[in-house]
Amino acid sequence: MADLLKGNAVIGQSGGPTCVINQSLVGVVTAIQHMPMVEHLFGARHGVRGIIEENFVDMKKIPLPTLEAVANTPAAALGSTRDKPDAEYCKRIFEVFAARDVHYFFYIGGNDSADTARIVNELADQAGYELRVFHIPKTIDNDLRVTDHCPGYGSAAKFVACALMGDDRDNASLPGVKVDIIMGRHAGWLTAASALGRTDPSDGPHLIYMPERKIDPDQMLADVDEVLKKRGRCLLAISEGIEDSEGVAWAQRIVEDGERDAHGNLQLSGSGAMGDYICQLIRDKLSVNRVRGDTFGYLQRSFAGCISPVDQAEARLAGNKAVEYAMAGNLDGSVAFKRTGNGPDYGIECVLTELSSVARDTKDLPAEYIAPNGHDVTEAFIEYALPLTGGLPQIGKLF
Amino acid sequence: MADLLKGNAVIGQSGGPTCVINQSLVGVVTAIQHMPMVEHLFGARHGVRGIIEENFVDMKKIPLPTLEAVANTPAAALGSTRDKPDAEYCKRIFEVFAARDVHYFFYIGGNDSADTARIVNELADQAGYELRVFHIPKTIDNDLRVTDHCPGYGSAAKFVACALMGDDRDNASLPGVKVDIIMGRHAGWLTAASALGRTDPSDGPHLIYMPERKIDPDQMLADVDEVLKKRGRCLLAISEGIEDSEGVAWAQRIVEDGERDAHGNLQLSGSGAMGDYICQLIRDKLSVNRVRGDTFGYLQRSFAGCISPVDQAEARLAGNKAVEYAMAGNLDGSVAFKRTGNGPDYGIECVLTELSSVARDTKDLPAEYIAPNGHDVTEAFIEYALPLTGGLPQIGKLF
Repeated sequence: MADLLKGNAVIGQSGGPTCVINQSLVGVVTAIQHMPMVEHLFGARHGVRGIIEENFVDMKKIPLPTLEAVANTPAAALGSTRDKPDAEYCKRIFEVFAARDVHYFFYIGGNDSADTARIVNELADQAGYELRVFHIPKTIDNDLRVTDHCPGYGSAAKFVACALMGDDRDNASLPGVKVDIIMGRHAGWLTAASALGRTDPSDGPHLIYMPERKIDPDQMLADVDEVLKKRGRCLLAISEGIEDSEGVAWAQRIVEDGERDAHGNLQLSGSGAMGDYICQLIRDKLSVNRVRGDTFGYLQRSFAGCISPVDQAEARLAGNKAVEYAMAGNLDGSVAFKRTGNGPDYGIECVLTELSSVARDTKDLPAEYIAPNGHDVTEAFIEYALPLTGGLPQIGKLF
Repeated sequence: MADLLKGNAVIGQSGGPTCVINQSLVGVVTAIQHMPMVEHLFGARHGVRGIIEENFVDMKKIPLPTLEAVANTPAAALGSTRDKPDAEYCKRIFEVFAARDVHYFFYIGGNDSADTARIVNELADQAGYELRVFHIPKTIDNDLRVTDHCPGYGSAAKFVACALMGDDRDNASLPGVKVDIIMGRHAGWLTAASALGRTDPSDGPHLIYMPERKIDPDQMLADVDEVLKKRGRCLLAISEGIEDSEGVAWAQRIVEDGERDAHGNLQLSGSGAMGDYICQLIRDKLSVNRVRGDTFGYLQRSFAGCISPVDQAEARLAGNKAVEYAMAGNLDGSVAFKRTGNGPDYGIECVLTELSSVARDTKDLPAEYIAPNGHDVTEAFIEYALPLTGGLPQIGKLF
């Protein structure tokens, strides 16, 4: 443990927003607001870009009612960024930090953001600049390592579950094939959440395709045909990141001129192309009158009307804890959740983990959460994920 | 007023489901459940198709807790249909009604369903068969005539408003152009609801395109360019039904092999093609890095996590009132809402209107609800539509 360190602090938000990323922001601000050793808490506009452009907001001056309203609002209130700092970028960050006597840096984001925090931290060490760097996790993808789950996932999972619950009843009302494309570039966590609202084996989604299990078009068509014959309808939940048996992403085959972001990620969302392709495939090859597709897109991370209260509380806690760790003299790390109980005893506690343990690599859905047939989830997954939604609406059926 | 009529009753649900169509169903069932002059209330599976196939459920036998759970559940619990009965179809309906001593027919649906009810009623009259036919309105499109608004619209409007509220914050977090495609084949009511959550002139949606005002691609691009220059970002809410200055639907130009349903309606939803087309148009013609599109699709009518409590109560009332009108000796009609107050005094009362006054033709968004620039709504629209959502979440911002 290092000594208490007097200095200013910077906080930023990065990567794709979530419905609770502002809870973590407000968690940091409220925890630090009355701490005398931190004179200024600078909010960086649009993440690291706001640092190098010295585009800051004095967060200590924001009234509590505003902060509380912001906490309940989706997306990054400070603005986000997709920038990934290189050595030159980081050098500029240090110059700004030194000029402004900044010795605490809180960065809310996913694995790319943890990597950014790690790089900034290493460069600070090399430069002999005393900087305490804390990463606060967020991602609807739920694919960060170490932590039991990620703030942001519970609300996105709730959105997906509520969408499939209604869509299953819609599909039962006007039977046919319905294809729902769900976010998740490499990991099937969010697509798996499509199963959370099922109450009966006849309920959809009847087929759940996740990137962790390869699937070829012929096999998918055979699966749909089997469900159609059994149930007269078929609801599919498909991850945007599914790959064929050769390991090539379906989306890559479909979108020829795939846009890539600064981290080299293929841009899969914000287009209905994949859903349309799969619908056309089913129309062409199977005898079914009604085939429809929806691509849930950005609503999954930003919908204002259906946020998990559990997710909100946990994201706030993660922000609070980052400050607590920093003030307790820790030099750096990422806040992680450890589950203390499940079912009615559901609970978490926070632990601090090394930045490098979260940066870069991600965590796939483990085998124990994927059904042996490869196109469904297990009961163990439901037990894992359901508490994170804070509860789902009750569904009533006549049949 | 006719005499009290002893006989069985039939209830059915038709057309595209909504989040509260089951409230109206349960409103009819609970109102009729203990009436001795109606021995059986037959629930027709999948609307008129369930009648000719004699696929019925005895609704009086369903326990109240099941009914209450069904009422809170989106989509048609009895199943829906797109069938539009012709003379032969109606003849079969009469045969079934006569064989089963059915003298009350309650049909929940939109303008197509009102037309179905009207045709069945006329054929019953011609055949000298005593039938009391009541239409209960539902449609997320809100385009039925006579009634102040339609059950189903308030929940869909709430979904669209919540989506845009979050999406506006997302777009502010990672600036660029975002295109949201919203349901509404001929009328802009639902697209207009995208404005309900705005709290500030800088909030999106910055451009709202409704079918009531023609728009050409060049004009849309000029509008987007102007917003981008002013705000550095642009959020668009676009009805799937917009038409160019020649009166041709954009979707028609895009989707060459447009699927049509039995009523001759072009199938616009269940495809991301229109959103993708508009995004590509903006990418090609304007200098902007980030362009994304979402097509809200079926979530607008079926999302289980964000239903308007006002809409729920009113849909239930409409079901109750249909029975009340029937038992009071009315021969036929459609239940309509009349607004009794607005703002904090918001309220409605039910009136009975002729089937022919609701059947077939629809109601566009009136000129007083569309801004003079043609791509926004007026304050009068906000005052009209906001109470129907039952309230929206509070949004907090730092900027």
